Amino acid sequence: MNDTLMILAHPDIDKSIGNKIISEYAAQHNVTVRNIAMLYPSFEIDIEAEQQALLNASTIVFQYPLFWYNVPAILKHWIDQVFQYGFAFGHNGFKLANKNIVVSFTMGSSKKDYPEEILEKILFPFKGLSKYCKMNYQGEILSNNINNYTPEGAIKAKELAQEHAKKLVQLIH
Amino acid sequence: MNDTLMILAHPDIDKSIGNKIISEYAAQHNVTVRNIAMLYPSFEIDIEAEQQALLNASTIVFQYPLFWYNVPAILKHWIDQVFQYGFAFGHNGFKLANKNIVVSFTMGSSKKDYPEEILEKILFPFKGLSKYCKMNYQGEILSNNINNYTPEGAIKAKELAQEHAKKLVQLIH
Repeated sequence: MNDTLMILAHPDIDKSIGNKIISEYAAQHNVTVRNIAMLYPSFEIDIEAEQQALLNASTIVFQYPLFWYNVPAILKHWIDQVFQYGFAFGHNGFKLANKNIVVSFTMGSSKKDYPEEILEKILFPFKGLSKYCKMNYQGEILSNNINNYTPEGAIKAKELAQEHAKKLVQLIH
Repeated sequence: MNDTLMILAHPDIDKSIGNKIISEYAAQHNVTVRNIAMLYPSFEIDIEAEQQALLNASTIVFQYPLFWYNVPAILKHWIDQVFQYGFAFGHNGFKLANKNIVVSFTMGSSKKDYPEEILEKILFPFKGLSKYCKMNYQGEILSNNINNYTPEGAIKAKELAQEHAKKLVQLIH
């Protein structure tokens, strides 16, 4: 049964290194992938379709490249629109209670720019959302050096993304 | 000289309590207010106009309601689009170096839901961005209980927003 949903939020997946490899690998391993930047190029979210996709899943993976220590705008818009009062929380809400959340993101920079205390801050909004909606924050898979600043770097980045993809699939299965 | 720019990011200012009062008060006190949700209802940012507005300012105030421990999507989109390589950082970049950043946001919930260690996490992306772009993170003004859940609450919220507005104008002048 395919009950893991990946919300993929890369603004241009054809130009992606890491998110493309990770999301394709996930799709080959029984994960339903929704590419929200491709579905909603004008930021007009089909809220009902997204809520239904969430209801059908037992685990939700948020997959994105980290921009400015935060999610890409399309993912923030998706959260603001989809996690509504009466659905995700509040009176007659909490419809996602007990579902799992997994955070999976790639960073262009190296690990030294992202010590543990900074990652803890970056992850907080998802942990806060999980708690608020009575969901289960299951964990995160993060990779550094996912960039194509040099040809050698791009080759290394693809290897790192493949490792990331395998770890992610292990975590959710 | 009017060199403070407020980037106002409330998705519907006519329905706002706090952000409306704060931004109107700022506008009356020599602050240039750009309502980015009104300027860009389809999320199509005029990058050049926004960059020029930043270049004209010496202090930039980010004004918004906190949604899910984070900025509203339109503000994240604005940052992702406007703070580009070659402008805000990178080769031939750092054009905003030494300008001040002030963060000003309102929260619907009470103070007990936002202890200091959570606020520290919430503020981090702006602190990180300031450092990365060699800007000066000047401080933040934050208010809780800005909501209209009850008629009494709405009256109190307006008073709190007026206090917030005064503190903000004091900080930037």
